[in-house]
Amino acid sequence: MLTVDEALRSVRAHAAPLPPRAVPLAEALGLVLAEDVAADLDLPPFDKALMDGYAVRTADLADGNRRLLVGEEITAGRTPTRPLAPGEAAAIMTGAPLPAGADAVVMVERTRRAGDHVVIEGPDVLPRQNWLPRGREMRSGEVVLTRGASLTPPRMGLLASVGRTSVHAIPRPRVAVVSTGDELVEPDQVPGRGQIRNSNATMLRALAVSAGCDAETLPTAPDDPDALHAILGRGLTADVMLVSGGVSAGNRDLVPAAFERLGVSNVFHKIRLKPGKPLWFGVGPARPDGNPGTLVFGLPGNPVSGVVGFLLFVRPALGLLAGQRDKADRAFPVRLATPFAHQGDRPTYHPARLVEGDTPSVSPLNWGGSADLRTVASADGFAVFPAGDRRYEAGEIVQFLPLG
Amino acid sequence: MLTVDEALRSVRAHAAPLPPRAVPLAEALGLVLAEDVAADLDLPPFDKALMDGYAVRTADLADGNRRLLVGEEITAGRTPTRPLAPGEAAAIMTGAPLPAGADAVVMVERTRRAGDHVVIEGPDVLPRQNWLPRGREMRSGEVVLTRGASLTPPRMGLLASVGRTSVHAIPRPRVAVVSTGDELVEPDQVPGRGQIRNSNATMLRALAVSAGCDAETLPTAPDDPDALHAILGRGLTADVMLVSGGVSAGNRDLVPAAFERLGVSNVFHKIRLKPGKPLWFGVGPARPDGNPGTLVFGLPGNPVSGVVGFLLFVRPALGLLAGQRDKADRAFPVRLATPFAHQGDRPTYHPARLVEGDTPSVSPLNWGGSADLRTVASADGFAVFPAGDRRYEAGEIVQFLPLG
Repeated sequence: MLTVDEALRSVRAHAAPLPPRAVPLAEALGLVLAEDVAADLDLPPFDKALMDGYAVRTADLADGNRRLLVGEEITAGRTPTRPLAPGEAAAIMTGAPLPAGADAVVMVERTRRAGDHVVIEGPDVLPRQNWLPRGREMRSGEVVLTRGASLTPPRMGLLASVGRTSVHAIPRPRVAVVSTGDELVEPDQVPGRGQIRNSNATMLRALAVSAGCDAETLPTAPDDPDALHAILGRGLTADVMLVSGGVSAGNRDLVPAAFERLGVSNVFHKIRLKPGKPLWFGVGPARPDGNPGTLVFGLPGNPVSGVVGFLLFVRPALGLLAGQRDKADRAFPVRLATPFAHQGDRPTYHPARLVEGDTPSVSPLNWGGSADLRTVASADGFAVFPAGDRRYEAGEIVQFLPLG
Repeated sequence: MLTVDEALRSVRAHAAPLPPRAVPLAEALGLVLAEDVAADLDLPPFDKALMDGYAVRTADLADGNRRLLVGEEITAGRTPTRPLAPGEAAAIMTGAPLPAGADAVVMVERTRRAGDHVVIEGPDVLPRQNWLPRGREMRSGEVVLTRGASLTPPRMGLLASVGRTSVHAIPRPRVAVVSTGDELVEPDQVPGRGQIRNSNATMLRALAVSAGCDAETLPTAPDDPDALHAILGRGLTADVMLVSGGVSAGNRDLVPAAFERLGVSNVFHKIRLKPGKPLWFGVGPARPDGNPGTLVFGLPGNPVSGVVGFLLFVRPALGLLAGQRDKADRAFPVRLATPFAHQGDRPTYHPARLVEGDTPSVSPLNWGGSADLRTVASADGFAVFPAGDRRYEAGEIVQFLPLG
């Protein structure tokens, strides 16, 4: 049986960035850029006032003179009609172009208007003060954002400022979620005997959306070969399909059989891990639209197994499809706040809560096992205990896999 | 002039959680719950197998016996038709109900089938092994999520499992974004002399979306009182309006005048801060739909002033409207990686990049001032330098306000 690390390496080996495409800028937030973007103009396009006040020639103020004749007024959107004459100041607004000859802007708070003159107050006015020279931010033709950049809000603004309303970017991965099992009823129904509500579809869709994906929930599939074939086949148009249930040992192998019939190649099935051992991973056939085959994760139906499988294997795969730089393992070392007795021959991901303090520590929760989602809903993540029966004391270091 | 802390206190005092409403579960991810949610059933609703294998009576195995007659097969969705007879095992699937009399589940990997019998292998089978007793996760009527809980994916699953398809929650704040100024042209146009592309609308909308809000961009408003009145009036249907430009000293006061005409009460104008001093904050009239008055932020038109104003004042306000617990100041102390000479009589937020290392440190970037968005696009946040001219050495501690 694969270890968690081996399984993760295998998943990563099958997850390459999706083919880039043109994306409207308004939909590109958070995507990874797939082109170098160059400026189409100098920015600022002119010597630009950074303050409201008066454009001046500092030479006019060199001999202690503080009084200048106010010439034209340059509001934003207007341009100066003539150079600044000696002894003259121009009233100027933030963002407006400096008149030729001006070499400083005096902020309005340091001036006093006296009829058609302005009096400069306060300390000496220095050249280059309070304006940005043409091209200081960028020069026409210069690359301002490079391929691989993640589109943050300031970068979105930068793209708008160089005239881009569309960018070549790696699209958001599309995830299809399918729950399987005759025992499932939808959340708005009251389960009969032996039945249970389908909570996995809601949870897995939310996990995919939280990871920045577009997610679609397909109809719940009964334990019937033809129905499974039809519904799982629809999921093969997505970049990733998450199938919940039908992969553990006692199942009648309907889900793996449906995958096989659909041409999904199995990469591995089962990982040395608790909860989540029966995880099935495979790759669908190359898609008609030229996209690579769908990554197919068959997650165990117990909800906590689904969460752990998602965090450990699906989330890293989604990041790679989205072109994000492969982040190091998200788990990090913390101290145990309380002792814990671990039993079992598989590494165990046990729901735990962060405890505030000078250094972070975690407290494992009283947990009913892989079907007990309620405990996970009050957890911050999972404390990781290696295989083997052993008592851990408070203060010992363990790994912690955060939920968020 | 207010300090940053005074201004933030003032903004916080005007930002209360929005009135809760019914939200479909599929749209509730990330929202704050405004009701206590109780279970409508016991979960699991029956003693539930956590493994695929065989339900057994451990008493049958007490005297070294390892061989049991296989009675019925209980697949998921089916229920046992009769109690387990002495000497008998029932084949059982993960998630299925235990038959009466069974007190353990033996995982299939530890069994061997021999005709109509099953042979149990490995260590002793203990009572309570591999099944979850009815009601272990929750009891009918028990509160499983309380008001104030933030709806994470596991909590979304939990809500589905107790039959909720809609919840009473604090809605996502709705943000209207308006850029103003005659000098602006849209990003798809080539600016003429004295003109500049509108990058703020794209950036501010992205900041609002990143903060978990629904954001709408209104038409760009020219420097005309009636047009401003009409466009800004539309923004007063939102929970928050972000207006970019028209609030600095040299402007013709058109934006503050339009706010006044619309009944927006000014709370403050100007903060001792660089960049972003001219920030205008006010509260609109109570809305016809019963919602409190729109929080109106007039942000300076220079893009970096807008970013800093958003991070310092708008983001905390949005969190409070969304009902999130008021987070402590997001800024944190870091060491300077490189020396820096600060000049100026206002606290300055200077774009800086995080430097990897044993302890995080930051390096201030070579920045052209409040109009230079390009430098911010390559920054991780802002290093904060208090008012006053002073040289900072590498290794000194400064505050750092992260962008993300």
